[in-house]
Amino acid sequence: MTEFFRPSGRAPAQLRGIHITRRYTKHAEGSVLVECGDTKVICTASVAEKVPFHVKGSGAGWLTAEYGMLPRATHTRGDREAARGKQSGRTQEIQRLIGRSLRAAVDLAKLGERTIHIDCDVIQADGGTRTASITGAWVAVHDAVEWLIKEGRLPETVMRDHVAAVSVGIYKGVPVLDLDYAEDSDCDTDMNVVMTGSDGIIEVQGTAEGEPFSRTELDDLLDLAQAGIEQLIHEQRQALQS
Amino acid sequence: MTEFFRPSGRAPAQLRGIHITRRYTKHAEGSVLVECGDTKVICTASVAEKVPFHVKGSGAGWLTAEYGMLPRATHTRGDREAARGKQSGRTQEIQRLIGRSLRAAVDLAKLGERTIHIDCDVIQADGGTRTASITGAWVAVHDAVEWLIKEGRLPETVMRDHVAAVSVGIYKGVPVLDLDYAEDSDCDTDMNVVMTGSDGIIEVQGTAEGEPFSRTELDDLLDLAQAGIEQLIHEQRQALQS
Amino acid sequence: MTEFFRPSGRAPAQLRGIHITRRYTKHAEGSVLVECGDTKVICTASVAEKVPFHVKGSGAGWLTAEYGMLPRATHTRGDREAARGKQSGRTQEIQRLIGRSLRAAVDLAKLGERTIHIDCDVIQADGGTRTASITGAWVAVHDAVEWLIKEGRLPETVMRDHVAAVSVGIYKGVPVLDLDYAEDSDCDTDMNVVMTGSDGIIEVQGTAEGEPFSRTELDDLLDLAQAGIEQLIHEQRQALQS
Amino acid sequence: MTEFFRPSGRAPAQLRGIHITRRYTKHAEGSVLVECGDTKVICTASVAEKVPFHVKGSGAGWLTAEYGMLPRATHTRGDREAARGKQSGRTQEIQRLIGRSLRAAVDLAKLGERTIHIDCDVIQADGGTRTASITGAWVAVHDAVEWLIKEGRLPETVMRDHVAAVSVGIYKGVPVLDLDYAEDSDCDTDMNVVMTGSDGIIEVQGTAEGEPFSRTELDDLLDLAQAGIEQLIHEQRQALQS
Amino acid sequence: MTEFFRPSGRAPAQLRGIHITRRYTKHAEGSVLVECGDTKVICTASVAEKVPFHVKGSGAGWLTAEYGMLPRATHTRGDREAARGKQSGRTQEIQRLIGRSLRAAVDLAKLGERTIHIDCDVIQADGGTRTASITGAWVAVHDAVEWLIKEGRLPETVMRDHVAAVSVGIYKGVPVLDLDYAEDSDCDTDMNVVMTGSDGIIEVQGTAEGEPFSRTELDDLLDLAQAGIEQLIHEQRQALQS
Amino acid sequence: MTEFFRPSGRAPAQLRGIHITRRYTKHAEGSVLVECGDTKVICTASVAEKVPFHVKGSGAGWLTAEYGMLPRATHTRGDREAARGKQSGRTQEIQRLIGRSLRAAVDLAKLGERTIHIDCDVIQADGGTRTASITGAWVAVHDAVEWLIKEGRLPETVMRDHVAAVSVGIYKGVPVLDLDYAEDSDCDTDMNVVMTGSDGIIEVQGTAEGEPFSRTELDDLLDLAQAGIEQLIHEQRQALQS
Repeated sequence: MTEFFRPSGRAPAQLRGIHITRRYTKHAEGSVLVECGDTKVICTASVAEKVPFHVKGSGAGWLTAEYGMLPRATHTRGDREAARGKQSGRTQEIQRLIGRSLRAAVDLAKLGERTIHIDCDVIQADGGTRTASITGAWVAVHDAVEWLIKEGRLPETVMRDHVAAVSVGIYKGVPVLDLDYAEDSDCDTDMNVVMTGSDGIIEVQGTAEGEPFSRTELDDLLDLAQAGIEQLIHEQRQALQS
Repeated sequence: MTEFFRPSGRAPAQLRGIHITRRYTKHAEGSVLVECGDTKVICTASVAEKVPFHVKGSGAGWLTAEYGMLPRATHTRGDREAARGKQSGRTQEIQRLIGRSLRAAVDLAKLGERTIHIDCDVIQADGGTRTASITGAWVAVHDAVEWLIKEGRLPETVMRDHVAAVSVGIYKGVPVLDLDYAEDSDCDTDMNVVMTGSDGIIEVQGTAEGEPFSRTELDDLLDLAQAGIEQLIHEQRQALQS
Repeated sequence: MTEFFRPSGRAPAQLRGIHITRRYTKHAEGSVLVECGDTKVICTASVAEKVPFHVKGSGAGWLTAEYGMLPRATHTRGDREAARGKQSGRTQEIQRLIGRSLRAAVDLAKLGERTIHIDCDVIQADGGTRTASITGAWVAVHDAVEWLIKEGRLPETVMRDHVAAVSVGIYKGVPVLDLDYAEDSDCDTDMNVVMTGSDGIIEVQGTAEGEPFSRTELDDLLDLAQAGIEQLIHEQRQALQS
Repeated sequence: MTEFFRPSGRAPAQLRGIHITRRYTKHAEGSVLVECGDTKVICTASVAEKVPFHVKGSGAGWLTAEYGMLPRATHTRGDREAARGKQSGRTQEIQRLIGRSLRAAVDLAKLGERTIHIDCDVIQADGGTRTASITGAWVAVHDAVEWLIKEGRLPETVMRDHVAAVSVGIYKGVPVLDLDYAEDSDCDTDMNVVMTGSDGIIEVQGTAEGEPFSRTELDDLLDLAQAGIEQLIHEQRQALQS
Repeated sequence: MTEFFRPSGRAPAQLRGIHITRRYTKHAEGSVLVECGDTKVICTASVAEKVPFHVKGSGAGWLTAEYGMLPRATHTRGDREAARGKQSGRTQEIQRLIGRSLRAAVDLAKLGERTIHIDCDVIQADGGTRTASITGAWVAVHDAVEWLIKEGRLPETVMRDHVAAVSVGIYKGVPVLDLDYAEDSDCDTDMNVVMTGSDGIIEVQGTAEGEPFSRTELDDLLDLAQAGIEQLIHEQRQALQS
Repeated sequence: MTEFFRPSGRAPAQLRGIHITRRYTKHAEGSVLVECGDTKVICTASVAEKVPFHVKGSGAGWLTAEYGMLPRATHTRGDREAARGKQSGRTQEIQRLIGRSLRAAVDLAKLGERTIHIDCDVIQADGGTRTASITGAWVAVHDAVEWLIKEGRLPETVMRDHVAAVSVGIYKGVPVLDLDYAEDSDCDTDMNVVMTGSDGIIEVQGTAEGEPFSRTELDDLLDLAQAGIEQLIHEQRQALQS
């Protein structure tokens, strides 16, 4: 493996540089710019004092997410989904994943009849936008919950645990952590993993792009992901100090 | 675990009865009714002698899938997506999964510049409609490829391997195989696994509905899924004799 | 007329074989598979305990219908209307016809403030899908009404009369009953007739595809249709014995 | 029947006053304002030198129709379909009927590879808007064909025959001709009939609104319609003199 | 400037002939046909006894406008927006302008919790359809308010002032009033001005189509517009006598 | 006027602090973050080597613009237009204005058959987002044109002049420059002005929100705007040094 080089020059188990900026925009209750290498996502958490129909009357709250990409976040300009009049299947899949992942981070029963709306908007894309969105959105949700406590609307935190996400894949036969765009485009297997601060698994989504993968490869990928997520959660903790 | 009972009365590692009927409708090149317990899906494979823009000129073929549910396939009537004017995020997620899974079964480079359209329409739902769709669609695609050979349009088969899928989950703390609706609704973790006839993994999608799950639980679920898929592929082989 | 042959080989006044299967799927209050030759339609009747805005407060009930075709119900695959994002004019015309026809079969004033939703989904098409839908949906509605009685929600039946439908047309100059696809495609005049069990006319829709037709031809077609509908209603009665 | 009064005060077999104004707007190749009593429709025929995909290359032409209502053409303001983002089922049904009816009036094979677009826009509605549209659109199409001849693009007329339409219905038990809105709203059976100048039937669409109707009633309605259409065609001929 | 000729032959400061017909259609509370040269627009004002969500409970009323063009109002047939499924940006811009302009004419606080819906439908277009719509809609709104007074629903008028509009532009270097289509298509600068009966400005929208324009040119255009609007308001007053 | 205070504390003729960051994201040919006080907009210019249908074959190029707002760019979260499935009238109006304004800055005839797509995405809103978009987009377009020159695709610049925009309004009776959100919400008259580097007017859009405004007030507002735009163009020039 001495001759193995990732396009990024990183070691197989090496994350990209991550930077989390809190209070990035001024209106949202939680607002974060998350940067994973060249991938940059604005994650906001907005509090609304109402809940969707399906939880109304239950006393519990709700959390939902939307995801978008600026048309020129990518190498070539993509269609603006608002202009085309509908969100792609990919967009819907991603925002459903973000919502599920963050609902696992919050004790909705104690949130009260209110909704936290997460918006993840990619302003620059270089692979891993959905996992960066989850990692950043966790901080935005945390800040929105802190705001609710400061406002006297919640007696104590409703955050159950950290939640962060990373992608892993098999690149030229080698399991690698945190794929950037160049690696992702040329990858046999791509897996997104979402985990908690106590090594609980929230979501595993692995897809063989070309050849099927084996149980052994799956195990290697999960090991890499777990180590990466531990570092990401460390970054989240650092950001909360700021 | 002596007092453990699944609502279906099945043992934890027991599949539902499966029945695959080929040539179910008369117009499609491949047409299959797949029944997994009370879940019934019509899977057709239609051949079109053109390819979408993104593969045009490459000499290769394409395979794509659509999924739908009759409005009253379920306990309470759902909206008809055609009347509502759009497909739900869930529908799009499922049809993307079916398409990816079956593309792994076919050597697209050898298919020629033609498209196989899969349609999976659920006429009765009792859990596991997406995995039943994949298992049934494989047979429909197989039959469409046989038809192409018989028509003299393909010199030999382009099927690379069997592909089948099953759901597994943790029901009341116990890993179980092939969840029906009652079990799925009351389940902590739900995972869909798609594998080939040679134990290669095509797709793993596991979601913690309530509590996060551990690596050990993930391993147990994958073991169950692998055993179940082996049986499903046995059923596919049986159906091809008919 | 000795040299006259219908593609189907049937006599001009001969119906296709009809088969009505009740309780075809398990969730709907009424669920019927109706087969008219190779045309196969799943007709379900679903009961909802609410009414649309325009009858709210009147004490009366409502009945409405939706119609769809699986994409590969036909010789060549058609677009999935849910994917295209709208129902065609043809689909809307057909579902409005089914709704009007079945409303004539039910005493809505006595139904109470509830709605019967009919869904007619064509799984295999060979001409006459809208008339088969009406004939089959009548049985599904009947079964849903029986279910309401058995549930104690209705004191007695609200069915006013049988309703069935058939197509007639002028094929190569000869009035014929119950056109299949081959006949329909090559037909000068096409008429759909909906009648009750007591020879009352609910709907007549006749269209000259090529040459206009005369009053005499119209009369011949109506005679054929009336005889055909009497047989179809006989089949409905038989099915209710099962 | 001496005590029978129609709300309009007309005799059962009496048409409303009809007025046809040619060259009503200046841009269209054919432009007609048709007034049937208080129902007023602008019918234009526009020529385009191309044909839709399904006739391309056949050498034949095409004719298609669209229909709309100004939002306040009616007693209470209706939604603007352009604002709502879709045409109602009723609108689609009507425009399909207008298109079919006028295609029967034109020898499309001789029209050449061009399309005549009919637009029928109701500026004031008082019942019978679809039949007035057909009667008026025939004159607009005639004028567009004359324009093609004058332009040297057609050697001779391609009009095959007159086509006009009228509604008939059973009002308080009596068959009446040409229903206005008050009569239509309170009518048991409503039938629209489209016929040619030589008494050929193009389309018959009869619907029992309340009670089913009998063959005898159907015959009476068809007699009324035929007499009415003869008068309408007389009005078309008069208009062509102007 | 002796050799300057407008295509219309009018002097630079000359309006087209204007004609305002009140009570043009019979159902609307206010209904006006406004003709500015060959531009003809039906403007109706409809009263609804409810208000949109954003003014509910305020005691005030609301006024909103919609705009449309018959497909063949123009030289070549345009798409029907209802068929295409959405209104163009141009249509939305125009109807927002009409709404804002007429809201300035009405004391909404005194209108009570009701809405006036304006519909402006162009039946023939020859330039200046949006300004003709505003000038005509003012009369329709006036008549709807008079109707409310006559019905006893308003104690006195809520009209604050006249409002009318005109376009001005720089045609071949010369500022001209009231552009028709030929002039508008060949014009460097195009400005729409909306003013009250007391020379107050409601809206100014000036756009350089080719070269930017100067402050001096802007001043000349505003002078022309003011003079033109005074004449238009004179015509409105005349119409109210009829 | 000694007691006059703008909420922002600025003098009537004082702009907000403006900051222009070039090369803000890495993929676009021109990418700018423009900050006018708390209003922050990402403006990108993307080059595509094709033109829309209406200029095809003319040898000239095209420039078009799209505009969007992140859902939580504002005080309360707005709907995501991509999720709602259509762009609002306001959005369409703004993107049409941006497109027109920037087309005036570029010699399209010399651009060649290519399109410059501008995307203006507001990440934080505090009034004046459309004018900030124009001012920032000019720099992005400039940079995209420089890129084309550097790539050897254009021999020389096709920029005709600077273009910048500002809002002005009458706040509590006093004409003020560059309204922020608090001022805009409480303003009688609101005008957006777009001008070139040589004091040519591209667009003037003035609207009376409450009372109509006079010619004198209009003149004062235009004076303020002209002075403000001169400063903004000075900032553009500064940014080009960086």
